[in-house]
Amino acid sequence: MSNEHFWAVIPAGGAGTRLWPLSRAGSPKFLHDLTGTGRSLLQSTWDRLEPLTGAQVLVVTGVAHVDAVAKQLPDLPADQLLAEPSPRDSMAAIGWAAAVLEARDPEAVLGSFAADHVIGDEEEFRACVTAAVAAASDGHVVTIGIEPTHPATGFGYIEMGDVLGDGPARAVAQFVEKPDRQRAEGYLATGRFRWNAGMFVVRASVLLDLLAQWHPELAAGLRAVAADPSRLAELWPGLEKIAIDHAVAEPAAAEGRVAVVPGGFRWDDVGDFASLGTLLEDAHGLPGVRVLGDADKLRVLDSTGVIVPGTDRVVALVGIDDVVVVDTPDAVLVMSRERAQDVKGIVDALKAQGRTDLT
Amino acid sequence: MSNEHFWAVIPAGGAGTRLWPLSRAGSPKFLHDLTGTGRSLLQSTWDRLEPLTGAQVLVVTGVAHVDAVAKQLPDLPADQLLAEPSPRDSMAAIGWAAAVLEARDPEAVLGSFAADHVIGDEEEFRACVTAAVAAASDGHVVTIGIEPTHPATGFGYIEMGDVLGDGPARAVAQFVEKPDRQRAEGYLATGRFRWNAGMFVVRASVLLDLLAQWHPELAAGLRAVAADPSRLAELWPGLEKIAIDHAVAEPAAAEGRVAVVPGGFRWDDVGDFASLGTLLEDAHGLPGVRVLGDADKLRVLDSTGVIVPGTDRVVALVGIDDVVVVDTPDAVLVMSRERAQDVKGIVDALKAQGRTDLT
Repeated sequence: MSNEHFWAVIPAGGAGTRLWPLSRAGSPKFLHDLTGTGRSLLQSTWDRLEPLTGAQVLVVTGVAHVDAVAKQLPDLPADQLLAEPSPRDSMAAIGWAAAVLEARDPEAVLGSFAADHVIGDEEEFRACVTAAVAAASDGHVVTIGIEPTHPATGFGYIEMGDVLGDGPARAVAQFVEKPDRQRAEGYLATGRFRWNAGMFVVRASVLLDLLAQWHPELAAGLRAVAADPSRLAELWPGLEKIAIDHAVAEPAAAEGRVAVVPGGFRWDDVGDFASLGTLLEDAHGLPGVRVLGDADKLRVLDSTGVIVPGTDRVVALVGIDDVVVVDTPDAVLVMSRERAQDVKGIVDALKAQGRTDLT
Repeated sequence: MSNEHFWAVIPAGGAGTRLWPLSRAGSPKFLHDLTGTGRSLLQSTWDRLEPLTGAQVLVVTGVAHVDAVAKQLPDLPADQLLAEPSPRDSMAAIGWAAAVLEARDPEAVLGSFAADHVIGDEEEFRACVTAAVAAASDGHVVTIGIEPTHPATGFGYIEMGDVLGDGPARAVAQFVEKPDRQRAEGYLATGRFRWNAGMFVVRASVLLDLLAQWHPELAAGLRAVAADPSRLAELWPGLEKIAIDHAVAEPAAAEGRVAVVPGGFRWDDVGDFASLGTLLEDAHGLPGVRVLGDADKLRVLDSTGVIVPGTDRVVALVGIDDVVVVDTPDAVLVMSRERAQDVKGIVDALKAQGRTDLT
């Protein structure tokens, strides 16, 4: 273990709407094996952190998913699985974990890593986290900035400033929201911008003290819940709903309190089926066909795309390129790969129709 | 009834391979409602002929489909449903019916109409058949030639010759096989060519006598089965396998024995899902989306194509044009509309793998 005070916090939330109909509110993305490894994204997150933290892991998830998370992570102690009564956004989730850790160990450093991302080079990832823990120990909020491979418009960016100390960490000049294509290309040209993967490493007490500076009621509420868990049901619904980026990371960056450790490992948030396709290999004998699941279910003639055969049915493709087909027992999705983000529109329409059975 | 001696013969065969996975050997095309009218193609064929023939209809089908045909056509007398022990092509099927009719009524005129075609203007169709029956009564083999709407390469053509008598019938100069695009365009430019829809009207005895001229054993075998139905199992397997076009229509045309009645009604053999799409209307509020089945099962965003939602599942489309999606309980097909003919390749591969459950 790199640091006895270091704890991983895994917020396991989000329905993964753009992976519908595979991922749903009742069966969200992080519970699925989306890489064909036999381990869910949540389990892979645990596996990736375990060499650094052992069982020093807190998982924060919705009350509906507590049983599924406990089943997937049998080595997670029961008192390290925090069940949110309702979704209150990332600041409440991570802040609650921070308050629990602060109460256990005033020196605790937490690293927050989403339960539903995929990371390529795990050794490099752990080296970055270790460097981030060192930078966090001196009071910084530390993020890990992913080296962009293309001018993505779906991610936020981090502009790096001056080098801090003698480690890899640099000051964060600013966080910027998802840019348009032209701005993204400009960012890449400077060499100073990194993707914001939402990874934060910070001392628990530093995080809560910074939060108290800008959102005192939220910080006080979280610390009160940690001090007396019986008050959870009473206090939780009144907590401010805000993302950790807006609540702490951006204002702290403006005060020079945020550092970034550049990460060269491959990272993917598996944001949609097109993204999922890039994580898979071509199916045997089927160039351009990426399959998540049993490729024996496929019959393919002159076609390419991303196929998820999730039932016992045969999926037959004829003369169609860059298609996404997702077969589930109650819904089948057929989509152009380039429109992979837009499946959200289908989910929104189903929700508007009250089809909770499908969403 | 136009003519007391007129009988309709409906050969109900063919698996409709290019409509897989909807149509299969065990559940062939003619048993399906492919027009959304609530009546199968077989039932629609009956409905279309009934004003001309009443119950003077013979259906010839494979032994496996006898029960399904009888159920779909409750008004068909049991002794007018002929069960082929095995497929012996169209000459044996129609010739058997001709021999049965000849034995009942030496003056019988039969009109043979496939069980799985769609016809637009039924009044016009019946007027053509009535004219064909008149022309058949004087000893001609009469076909109905469909006015081409485009230079189709998937149909045979009939070249019309001189006018015969004072009806609409004309001599057939020649039958020609499926042409390439350029030849088809040439045919249309002359105004003399019609599509061969496989409709034949002829006196039963004339058909069998012509057959006896070129295929004497086949004619004798069919007449022997009609004279003594108990010999069916013995004689049927030895009958020559040949299409009526090659056995009789083409050689008879060379002898000036074939007439054609031009038909201006819309005709479609529903050869594939692209063809099926042209028979359907756009779904309500979904321009370019043709649905066979329950449109409420669809969720569509910026997409066009031909959709057959055959199960209880939702079919969602996002940003995909000219797609064919066919949802069945054990197979889902996703195909480019322009490749609709090529689904046969999938069926052939499944057959080669012994997947009789799916074909």
